[in-house]
Amino acid sequence: MRVGFIGLGAMGRPMAGHLMAAGHELAVWARRPEAVAPLAERGAMVCASAAELAARSEVVITIVTTSADVEAVAFGPGGLAEGFVAGSVHVDMSTIAPGMARSLAARYDAMGVGWLDAPVSGGERGAIDATLAIMAGGRRETLEWVRPLFERLGRSIVHVGEAGAGQVAKACNQMIMVSTIQACAEAMHLAHAHGVDLAALRHALMGGSAASRVLEVLGGRMVTRDFAAGIEARLHHKDFGILLAEACRLGAPLPVAVQVWQQLNALMGQGWGRDDTSSLLRVLEAASRDK
Amino acid sequence: MRVGFIGLGAMGRPMAGHLMAAGHELAVWARRPEAVAPLAERGAMVCASAAELAARSEVVITIVTTSADVEAVAFGPGGLAEGFVAGSVHVDMSTIAPGMARSLAARYDAMGVGWLDAPVSGGERGAIDATLAIMAGGRRETLEWVRPLFERLGRSIVHVGEAGAGQVAKACNQMIMVSTIQACAEAMHLAHAHGVDLAALRHALMGGSAASRVLEVLGGRMVTRDFAAGIEARLHHKDFGILLAEACRLGAPLPVAVQVWQQLNALMGQGWGRDDTSSLLRVLEAASRDK
Repeated sequence: MRVGFIGLGAMGRPMAGHLMAAGHELAVWARRPEAVAPLAERGAMVCASAAELAARSEVVITIVTTSADVEAVAFGPGGLAEGFVAGSVHVDMSTIAPGMARSLAARYDAMGVGWLDAPVSGGERGAIDATLAIMAGGRRETLEWVRPLFERLGRSIVHVGEAGAGQVAKACNQMIMVSTIQACAEAMHLAHAHGVDLAALRHALMGGSAASRVLEVLGGRMVTRDFAAGIEARLHHKDFGILLAEACRLGAPLPVAVQVWQQLNALMGQGWGRDDTSSLLRVLEAASRDK
Repeated sequence: MRVGFIGLGAMGRPMAGHLMAAGHELAVWARRPEAVAPLAERGAMVCASAAELAARSEVVITIVTTSADVEAVAFGPGGLAEGFVAGSVHVDMSTIAPGMARSLAARYDAMGVGWLDAPVSGGERGAIDATLAIMAGGRRETLEWVRPLFERLGRSIVHVGEAGAGQVAKACNQMIMVSTIQACAEAMHLAHAHGVDLAALRHALMGGSAASRVLEVLGGRMVTRDFAAGIEARLHHKDFGILLAEACRLGAPLPVAVQVWQQLNALMGQGWGRDDTSSLLRVLEAASRDK
């Protein structure tokens, strides 16, 4: 398949590599030319603009940071929409607001261009190992058409619903995951105040009903105080901004998520935004030391 | 081993049965005589008081509801302490305050009687299947002595630390588990407000970093709206009362746990205390309908 790829960061670079390895004809474009060099060396075609990339691709995958980034790449000057022909598909794998996904889908629909929002869970490790969870919103037949690409990137591929539904699922994923990280941090903080050894605590908890991948991985980092980034906390902070704005618009009360958001605000205030989200433990400790 | 057992409820009855099946000589006592009938029929000796039970047992296991229940059974009139001889062991598998566990351990220690706090995770299902997680506080050698009993009851047996440490771990388990239930409820509530199908949502989330046993089991109940009790929510409400009082005493801020506590208060206020804790979803829905 002729695939275009935009967003060659920590996630996108290995993902694009998997698609090339599977024999797809890859084209790339990046605002910063140095970002495309590793893939160009492996034979990817380098385009001069997003529009040029769209014109030679059946499917364009984007994985960038913000809603505004995706909108600019799609409908800004020299953007994908200037190059797409009817029947092309834009698959956005970034984590953005569901409302933006719905809006872009509608604008493409008027042009006969397909859309999927297909954000992922699993982080850099999942991108490298091709074990991502892909949560897709858009038409089911569009998903079936690009499924061979997704099967090279992840091991869980679920059609959640119409355009935007993938982003809703991703928001829910982030909400549950980071709330669980915070709950683990509070448990560690309480146990430490009781004088209990945290490695033994985590070991005991992993056998019971509180067990989760979060407790295993991020709970492990809290025990060893390894706060170097797995996933940078500033990205979770961004996600919570989006999902709480949506909850506000929809009149959906989220009493725990809003507290987690405040703790992430405090984490950012401490200057730990580029550290791992297990730093939420340090936020609790800092609050206790201040007294 | 000569084992005494007090607390033949939904958890205790199958646990006592496993110990008999393993060939231990079981004695039982209950405030309500009808509670002992099923085990008496299988050959358990019925005692007239906790003191009598203690006098003929090398180890007494209790699994009752509150801190006050355990204290009364241990040191109330006709209680275990009146029957124990030096070298006996009281293993309390109830979920109670760590401070009470420490206090009872100290009083027994002065008498030469051993103590373990060994609360469990896994619920009625885990008790029936003998797959409980056992979190033990007390002397390591005491744990080693009763380990053959624990191996008949559970599959994860961890020495967390000194007396009280088992209860601290259980409090942490409850905190993480119910906070995760609440986070799942908030995710479902937000997704529903977005018009997203909850079964597809849960399926997508189970593939990603938000996956957990809580999402699988209680998230499943939220999708099918099966709020009949797995674990009665009133028991979690009790646990949060204990752990937030401890956090208050220790000066440990728990911003998410305190919100979960308030949602459990609202659940109790709705009269859903004997339903499953997945009813936290209904608390959010009730708040939205009121507007």
